Amino acid sequence: MERSAVFHRPDQNYSFILDESTLGIRIRTKKDDVERIELIHGDPYIWKDDKWVFEKIDMTLNATDALFDYWETTITPPHRRIRYGFELHAKGETLLYTEKGFYEEVLYDCQYYFCFPYLHASELFNAPDWVKDTRWYQIFPERFANANSSINPNNTIPWGAAEPAQNNFFGGDFEGVIEHLDYLVDLGINGIYFTPIFKSPSNHKYDTIDYFEIDPQFGTKEDLKRLVKECHDRGIKIMLDAVFNHSGYYFAPFQDVLEKGQDSEYANWFYPHSFPLHGGEQPNYETFAFVASMPKLNTQNPQVKKYLLDVSAYWINEFDIDGWRLDVANEVDHQFWREFRTVVREQKPDIYILGEVWHDSMPWLLGDQFDAVMNYPFTTNVLHLLASQTITAKEFMNDMTTVIQSYPKNVMDVTFNLVGSHDTPRILTECQEDVSRVKLIYTLLYTFMGSPCMYYGDEIGMTGGKDPGCRKCMEWNPERQDSDLLDHVKKLMSLRQSEKLLANEGHFQFLNQEQSEIVAYRKYHHDQNVLVIINPTNVEQTFRIPHVLKGNVIKNLWTH
Amino acid sequence: MERSAVFHRPDQNYSFILDESTLGIRIRTKKDDVERIELIHGDPYIWKDDKWVFEKIDMTLNATDALFDYWETTITPPHRRIRYGFELHAKGETLLYTEKGFYEEVLYDCQYYFCFPYLHASELFNAPDWVKDTRWYQIFPERFANANSSINPNNTIPWGAAEPAQNNFFGGDFEGVIEHLDYLVDLGINGIYFTPIFKSPSNHKYDTIDYFEIDPQFGTKEDLKRLVKECHDRGIKIMLDAVFNHSGYYFAPFQDVLEKGQDSEYANWFYPHSFPLHGGEQPNYETFAFVASMPKLNTQNPQVKKYLLDVSAYWINEFDIDGWRLDVANEVDHQFWREFRTVVREQKPDIYILGEVWHDSMPWLLGDQFDAVMNYPFTTNVLHLLASQTITAKEFMNDMTTVIQSYPKNVMDVTFNLVGSHDTPRILTECQEDVSRVKLIYTLLYTFMGSPCMYYGDEIGMTGGKDPGCRKCMEWNPERQDSDLLDHVKKLMSLRQSEKLLANEGHFQFLNQEQSEIVAYRKYHHDQNVLVIINPTNVEQTFRIPHVLKGNVIKNLWTH
Repeated sequence: MERSAVFHRPDQNYSFILDESTLGIRIRTKKDDVERIELIHGDPYIWKDDKWVFEKIDMTLNATDALFDYWETTITPPHRRIRYGFELHAKGETLLYTEKGFYEEVLYDCQYYFCFPYLHASELFNAPDWVKDTRWYQIFPERFANANSSINPNNTIPWGAAEPAQNNFFGGDFEGVIEHLDYLVDLGINGIYFTPIFKSPSNHKYDTIDYFEIDPQFGTKEDLKRLVKECHDRGIKIMLDAVFNHSGYYFAPFQDVLEKGQDSEYANWFYPHSFPLHGGEQPNYETFAFVASMPKLNTQNPQVKKYLLDVSAYWINEFDIDGWRLDVANEVDHQFWREFRTVVREQKPDIYILGEVWHDSMPWLLGDQFDAVMNYPFTTNVLHLLASQTITAKEFMNDMTTVIQSYPKNVMDVTFNLVGSHDTPRILTECQEDVSRVKLIYTLLYTFMGSPCMYYGDEIGMTGGKDPGCRKCMEWNPERQDSDLLDHVKKLMSLRQSEKLLANEGHFQFLNQEQSEIVAYRKYHHDQNVLVIINPTNVEQTFRIPHVLKGNVIKNLWTH
Repeated sequence: MERSAVFHRPDQNYSFILDESTLGIRIRTKKDDVERIELIHGDPYIWKDDKWVFEKIDMTLNATDALFDYWETTITPPHRRIRYGFELHAKGETLLYTEKGFYEEVLYDCQYYFCFPYLHASELFNAPDWVKDTRWYQIFPERFANANSSINPNNTIPWGAAEPAQNNFFGGDFEGVIEHLDYLVDLGINGIYFTPIFKSPSNHKYDTIDYFEIDPQFGTKEDLKRLVKECHDRGIKIMLDAVFNHSGYYFAPFQDVLEKGQDSEYANWFYPHSFPLHGGEQPNYETFAFVASMPKLNTQNPQVKKYLLDVSAYWINEFDIDGWRLDVANEVDHQFWREFRTVVREQKPDIYILGEVWHDSMPWLLGDQFDAVMNYPFTTNVLHLLASQTITAKEFMNDMTTVIQSYPKNVMDVTFNLVGSHDTPRILTECQEDVSRVKLIYTLLYTFMGSPCMYYGDEIGMTGGKDPGCRKCMEWNPERQDSDLLDHVKKLMSLRQSEKLLANEGHFQFLNQEQSEIVAYRKYHHDQNVLVIINPTNVEQTFRIPHVLKGNVIKNLWTH
């Protein structure tokens, strides 16, 4: 047995609370190295004749990737406390694996074993229930629809009359969104994520001037109220974008520091290195990236904290929004996000908190901060398989398994899956405009675990390179929309709506077959299965219905 | 290269903040499998010609245990942000290891790499500075000294006239401690940890009746004030024991629930399963272990939280205590401890927070909860080596390395090392009353990393089996004290005081030599080294001064 490959630690993705009384326990071993694993478990305080009393249950080989096998089980400790270890069985060898290492026989002193000391309901990762049934649509409001020309910003260009640039404006507004809500309902979405709408000089609005005001180019606060109501009437949730890592250059407190230097009462709202402040290529204050117009906010300062938490509560209480997406969330301190969660949950218990974190996000997904992150690792793997076509089906399943296994199961159920955004080239462009590959990508997106998001216009085959290319005006002329692709997307959304197993009601499992170049997985609950089979190659492939499904009646959900 | 053994994740003991601008980074590989590791690192926002700009530095092979090599380095990212990966060199093979897995060549897109997004000063693990220079002494106040017979509890037995039992009393009190402070100063300690002193019917006082009152058998609040002042005058810190996991049976809120059942306004202060409450072998409410007289407190209830946080602040503000030891800390929810830290740090910024956690404690030692835990894994390893003698020197160094490497360096500097307490048999009894082995154990304890603690009476060779045997009355008759052992302890404490390297001023490294049955380690800073050599066997052993120390002038600190 390869002992150095065995890994477990009683937290994060290896021990996690699934509900008030259930713990999920996982262990990884070297691929194909261990034949069977039993979980040895008991209450730390139950002993008999000076020996710890324990039981054994079999673990399930749940998933496998390039290097590892992942074993899992759930357990309901009667007194919410558990000590546990693993009995690993391989050919000719049985080992006990505990917190203190490996032993050749079972130990009867629970002090050697791993400990999950207490299941506290308050430590459950509890994203709102509605999220797993949500099909998101991301709107970049400057570019979705211009319905009220009276509030156009200066120098507004006629809709679609130019390529998007860093600094041009087409006048998209709230009225434009309201006018097209029926289009969105018909498409099948039931959640909208808006990139920022607060007062800001740019077209993307990631450089906020005033967190308590709507940018006038989008409309008024009354318009936003109407927009939210119209959405809620149609069963659509609304998520806004909170840019709390940094402010804009024209944010009043930053202007005050620019003017007064260290005498400004706002000097500690930012991270100045010296005074007076200057921008340029190397600003003498901390910024987002090296962008002088985006000074980093000091979220460790109690005044800043109070200001931003007031903002967070205000838009929930006054406008009834349903979610906050948090920009550059990984560069803000964890304690700020913990307090943020407490405050916004107090306003609305089922609010959704989505962080922008592109990399491994476990530290934010422990139940005390975010409900989900933007799952760019999902994006990357999908692009490798179907856009750049640099990995095989088997590699895709391995790589995706690595991502899935790096989080608790209940975290993956609500992860925010996307295949493009305002920060990436559009998916059709990534696929060299091969629509058939985009269709496969959507099939994957809408049948996978997590909460899928469509970037505006991708459903009708819009193209565009990286920012600003991906921020073209929405194409409303039906003749220039790809109706075939649109129908494909509608069908997928409708299927996800009618088949609850596709909206994360059950479990997920890749069906990885030797020699096969097929990506296949099932979502299942008891004896109900939904089977998804994707052929990412250009040639016909054979897929054998796996043994686990034999004897079942099979219905083709796609063609029936 | 054994890829399945390589482990890194950008948090916990693998990436940790050492000061406002420095990050510690660690990686583990299979033992003797990799020859050299370079850290590839750069700012995520610095790119040139569409390629990420990075630098490389060598990592140090820092430690090794039975299965793994541990490599470490520190890094100071100029803009507090870092993406990084590892270039692993083995015979005939070089691999890049990143968040996304292994690659055979270096990648120029930092999205593949591990990310530590931002060093926030507020996320630094910052235990108080004084702790690493503290030599603790644990006092079980009922058994240390009885100087005021007028406050003896009923049925008090003359000092030492009986074996300690679950329910007998010998009348130890604060006055007794004050009378012996000069003894403690002479011994060389500068911190006292008192087991509970609040009002409670038992001799151990772990079943609190009133958290705002001193138990009258110990004295008055004025006596405690005097005790603290007398200690502070002598440079001795005071730590009290907070029993917040559970109350005592006679705690007024619990009595109210017993009386009024679910109509009690305190029903949610506990975890009742049904009403009326009953005790017995299986109480119908949650308890510590299965002890009916210790009902578990609901620390998720805001009222309970407020009450206990008020208690925490009260004893700091009114009595100027320096630390809180937290009983059964692992079974209380993390959010409670986060708020506890915030509150007690507000009262006294350099207060020490010590949790009772017997097992792997990483989740409590991330900087937002405790400064240290009671390091029982240290105890266990020491007992295996020198008490039960079930492991060799080499196994000891391996097992201790596993513990050390499971935490960030700055966590280990202040860990609370002990070789016995009121919850374990006394060390001399564990060693079958072989004093020479106890002396070696103390040599280890007082020259190791961490903050060492002596359990009252162990320094003079008291014996006793597990609770209640280990809670005998302190032996004050010099003729019945082991003065040779006492001198050994005094000398060790004095050495630790005069040699700052022994009090964690530098780095720690085991000197593990092939064929040797010696435990050896050095503590060093620049070219200053303190070398500790311990022979745990009964026969003479040879130890070769290792190459790293060659050419240095050697002074024998023990005999000079």
